[in-house]
Amino acid sequence: MRAPLGILNRLSFSSMSLKPLVDVHTHVYLPRYASWLRSRSVAPKIMSTEAGEERLLILENEPSGGRPVGPQYWDRQEKLRFMDLHGIDISFVSTANPWLDFLSAKDAHELALGLNSDLEEYCSTGPSYSDSVLKRLYGLGLLPLVPGITIDAIVEAVNQIAAAPHLKGLIMGTKGIGKGLDDEALDPVWQAIEAAGLVVFLHPHYGVDSNAWGDKDNGHVLPLALGFPFETTTATARLILSGVFDRFPSLRILLAHSGGALPQLSSRLASCIDHDPVLYFDAVAYGPEELGFVSEVVSRSKRFETGSTVQEEADRREGSQRMLFGTDHPFFPPLTSTEKWKSVVENLEAIASVPGWGASEKGGVRGGNALSLFGLQIK
Amino acid sequence: MRAPLGILNRLSFSSMSLKPLVDVHTHVYLPRYASWLRSRSVAPKIMSTEAGEERLLILENEPSGGRPVGPQYWDRQEKLRFMDLHGIDISFVSTANPWLDFLSAKDAHELALGLNSDLEEYCSTGPSYSDSVLKRLYGLGLLPLVPGITIDAIVEAVNQIAAAPHLKGLIMGTKGIGKGLDDEALDPVWQAIEAAGLVVFLHPHYGVDSNAWGDKDNGHVLPLALGFPFETTTATARLILSGVFDRFPSLRILLAHSGGALPQLSSRLASCIDHDPVLYFDAVAYGPEELGFVSEVVSRSKRFETGSTVQEEADRREGSQRMLFGTDHPFFPPLTSTEKWKSVVENLEAIASVPGWGASEKGGVRGGNALSLFGLQIK
Repeated sequence: MRAPLGILNRLSFSSMSLKPLVDVHTHVYLPRYASWLRSRSVAPKIMSTEAGEERLLILENEPSGGRPVGPQYWDRQEKLRFMDLHGIDISFVSTANPWLDFLSAKDAHELALGLNSDLEEYCSTGPSYSDSVLKRLYGLGLLPLVPGITIDAIVEAVNQIAAAPHLKGLIMGTKGIGKGLDDEALDPVWQAIEAAGLVVFLHPHYGVDSNAWGDKDNGHVLPLALGFPFETTTATARLILSGVFDRFPSLRILLAHSGGALPQLSSRLASCIDHDPVLYFDAVAYGPEELGFVSEVVSRSKRFETGSTVQEEADRREGSQRMLFGTDHPFFPPLTSTEKWKSVVENLEAIASVPGWGASEKGGVRGGNALSLFGLQIK
Repeated sequence: MRAPLGILNRLSFSSMSLKPLVDVHTHVYLPRYASWLRSRSVAPKIMSTEAGEERLLILENEPSGGRPVGPQYWDRQEKLRFMDLHGIDISFVSTANPWLDFLSAKDAHELALGLNSDLEEYCSTGPSYSDSVLKRLYGLGLLPLVPGITIDAIVEAVNQIAAAPHLKGLIMGTKGIGKGLDDEALDPVWQAIEAAGLVVFLHPHYGVDSNAWGDKDNGHVLPLALGFPFETTTATARLILSGVFDRFPSLRILLAHSGGALPQLSSRLASCIDHDPVLYFDAVAYGPEELGFVSEVVSRSKRFETGSTVQEEADRREGSQRMLFGTDHPFFPPLTSTEKWKSVVENLEAIASVPGWGASEKGGVRGGNALSLFGLQIK
């Protein structure tokens, strides 16, 4: 088990109260990626409407013919404006789903390397955070995880990300190279990621079989509110059961949407508890009870090691150290460009209202924990 | 909104400390049902092995060729022995999945009526609880919810259950008559259930599309630990979105496995919160953190009505009033017939260890809440 970096680094932030605010769940379609999407005739694609607007279709048969897209998806100035509007100091930017999943092995390989290079430049040429040594933008790179790719090509991208000073991890979906993340063929990839100390941001895209949603038109509600978290939960459970965390115990996995349903089902799926130490949870759950609960669950593995079954108030505080604020920008925008985004405000209010979290815990979830996880220090 | 019966009835139990212990999640295959299963050549079926034992196959392609079945599935004496072994005073017994789902409309109708009659007799001719007016066994009946059935035939079964003195509700899966529970065709059924004051125990069977589980052989783990709760979560969300709880506001739904992932995803699926008052949760979640969290979430709807966003310690106590102990007997048995069942012991320990629950709350979850929900009084 690696040293609890969180505890050490947190001390330097706790006195800073609510600064910095760090967003670990924030997306971009870089221009090189947007160009690919514009060239396509099936989803994922960017289409031009007759009115001259662009719309993004991530999945075929999406309700309402896709969503409007604009510079907030690719323009760095728009990302910084969004950050300023909400007081976000630092963002760890990642390509949004579906990443490279729809590409041939050759195209995915080429585009991964190009996008990782673009993202490093996006971050390195951006502004600094206050008068610190930190930048305001860091990146999570991409791997060419598609069927038919060679493992060497994937590891090449891992090494490229590891060598890029402003890329601190990578984002991935749940399909691996076609058989999911519990595919032993990926072991050299986990090994390279672990050796490089990169954080893996595990993010859903496919949800579950749409037959589950029935005949009623509920828009995006069921696939997004339930299907996405189910996918993350399933992928994480499969990773655990496959022994990946036993073979690569220093891997660090950041789970989108606070781990989906994993915390609530983790006693039912008891093996999760044993593997909690490697799991980190974004704080994109929209309610203080959910966040407080996740922090309790996160702390259980330690208690089980000591044989204690009694929950202490300190457990909720300790568990908070593996939870990290995120916005999901630029998705779910408000109606006008000047108002604050509801999902951001809700998640910040939720963090502020978790019973049992003091200023130190809230400051950690707002930013300190993210800096610790990604190995950054302000001074 | 109906009067908070739970609060009124609870007072009479709180002084009784940990008695009675009531099991709301406990299953049976009555002899009439077991005979049907023995006559079948595809799942669900009961097969005889060459060694003369019987095995139950609930789904085709189940790992390890199904599970051993014996008298614990149909013999009332075995149910009572199990209850005595664990100090369970009263059980609300229901037919296990897949209920009547595999039958023709004609057979399902006939078997529903026959099984409801059998279950009433199973309960009414059983022992009394201590020297009270209560029995030790009550039942949750069955409806012939299959494609092609007439709504009149379903309502007939509702009325039969309502007229049976020892049947206090009914168990159902998530398919309805083929299109799920959000099918408007079922409105007369909900209306009849609501008018009769019967509790609906919503229980999973199908899980989600098995492609989600990948190629690895993880046995039953993923379909049971994740697929089952996902199914319950989805069905409940679809019920909420369809407006069933708005049209029939006095319906009372008991959710298996503590509502699956619904509590953790309920802020993401915010409409759940508005409809919390009609939802009850069994306490089959195997961990005290999960149970405490569910009780917090359950209490939110009231706070939202008052406009308060501050969580009080009392909320967790109040939310506990809609949670109810269950065993899932006779599934997941231990290796010897004399030892206590791990899942029962775990769930009782979990109830005993929830932070913020006092003796009154624990006594309620152990039994008082169930008696309130099902409208029973000891004296």
